[in-house]
Amino acid sequence: MSTAVATAPVTTTRQEVEDLIHAYVQCIDDDRLEEWPDFFADDCLYKVIPRENADLGLPVAVMFCDSKGMLRDRIVALRKANIYAPHFYRHLVSNTRILGEQAGVITAQTNYGVFQTLLDGETRVYNTGKYVDKIVRVNGALRFKEKLCIFDTYRIQTLMVTPI
Amino acid sequence: MSTAVATAPVTTTRQEVEDLIHAYVQCIDDDRLEEWPDFFADDCLYKVIPRENADLGLPVAVMFCDSKGMLRDRIVALRKANIYAPHFYRHLVSNTRILGEQAGVITAQTNYGVFQTLLDGETRVYNTGKYVDKIVRVNGALRFKEKLCIFDTYRIQTLMVTPI
Amino acid sequence: MSTAVATAPVTTTRQEVEDLIHAYVQCIDDDRLEEWPDFFADDCLYKVIPRENADLGLPVAVMFCDSKGMLRDRIVALRKANIYAPHFYRHLVSNTRILGEQAGVITAQTNYGVFQTLLDGETRVYNTGKYVDKIVRVNGALRFKEKLCIFDTYRIQTLMVTPI
Repeated sequence: MSTAVATAPVTTTRQEVEDLIHAYVQCIDDDRLEEWPDFFADDCLYKVIPRENADLGLPVAVMFCDSKGMLRDRIVALRKANIYAPHFYRHLVSNTRILGEQAGVITAQTNYGVFQTLLDGETRVYNTGKYVDKIVRVNGALRFKEKLCIFDTYRIQTLMVTPI
Repeated sequence: MSTAVATAPVTTTRQEVEDLIHAYVQCIDDDRLEEWPDFFADDCLYKVIPRENADLGLPVAVMFCDSKGMLRDRIVALRKANIYAPHFYRHLVSNTRILGEQAGVITAQTNYGVFQTLLDGETRVYNTGKYVDKIVRVNGALRFKEKLCIFDTYRIQTLMVTPI
Repeated sequence: MSTAVATAPVTTTRQEVEDLIHAYVQCIDDDRLEEWPDFFADDCLYKVIPRENADLGLPVAVMFCDSKGMLRDRIVALRKANIYAPHFYRHLVSNTRILGEQAGVITAQTNYGVFQTLLDGETRVYNTGKYVDKIVRVNGALRFKEKLCIFDTYRIQTLMVTPI
């Protein structure tokens, strides 16, 4: 309404962050992986790391991409090069919490469970953990600047090919 | 405020759709199955179909009801005729997303996981998938006009008797 | 707007109740258990009970604390006295529904799943059930006056040490 309000920081709601995470998760579960990189800012970091390593500050990651190009490469590799057992993912997410917002960067945390179905038709708990996300606005839309998938399940039954 | 606004379409929020789905799920988990048909419009369709069939446009369903009367029959059969292992269900749902609204019909999508406990006391992943719902207002309350439960878990461990 | 409105009861939203439950769950999953009692009012009741007992009105509980001091004792015992297999918890919650509000006490219900990872690195369904909570405001913040964890999984694989 006034200039002062116009320059005040935009307050992002939990609902908006959830909308982003829900769309992200649905994209993976629907196997529309070519759209997956679009959830990230151009300058981004995506890491899938075990909980123990995260707690100890150790850097080893199961998946690591530090640009949108690397995210795209990951999907090209999955479609054309990687050999793996066909499977479906189904994500359940909950507990999205905004932990803070600083200089336009929102930090949010969300619990996730990924349930995997292989060709035998049975669905198993594949991976549980939490997303720790740094989220920014790009042309008005929320995008991940950083997405850490910190997982509990450190025995991964099959090669992790599909992003979490 | 004006007549024009009064005749404009009512915008349904994600929160309202979630409230419907949460009440639906709680009804099943609490074993109040006689109330289950009341979540549907009189003219309705309920189908539980494997993901592969849905993707290929194949019609075979594990459960199929195309009227409220058939939904009621299903519960009468479950209570009086079907023979099956006693069990509890527990649903976890997430990712409710409104995909569109046209002529008063809302299309929404929700991920679900059903966790089943049999008499051995252990809880297992029974069925995961997504709800694809067409929702209408009946006397002001949201009801399912169509509910598709599209599941990943195509090896169903025991006969599916209780609705998803 | 008027005095009548000013003295009307504060209406608590589902979002507020979810915020409380999400923070509660995150506290446990992050192993910040010393903060766990702070989610409760001083005069409180915490019970973890099997679904069958709850249905039959039987009082036996797997965990029982009827004061904040007992909640603290439980954590001291867990840290210093109990012997148990190291593990992580990951909660997924959904379906939070406000069932009523009377004299400042909100009754709410939430489905939960606890996924446990032991030292073998595999994640299993540990316990599913529902929270039935009585929630009050203490100095403006929502706190549990009563928390019942009514669980489906009556075969508990290992001693339940960590609260649900």
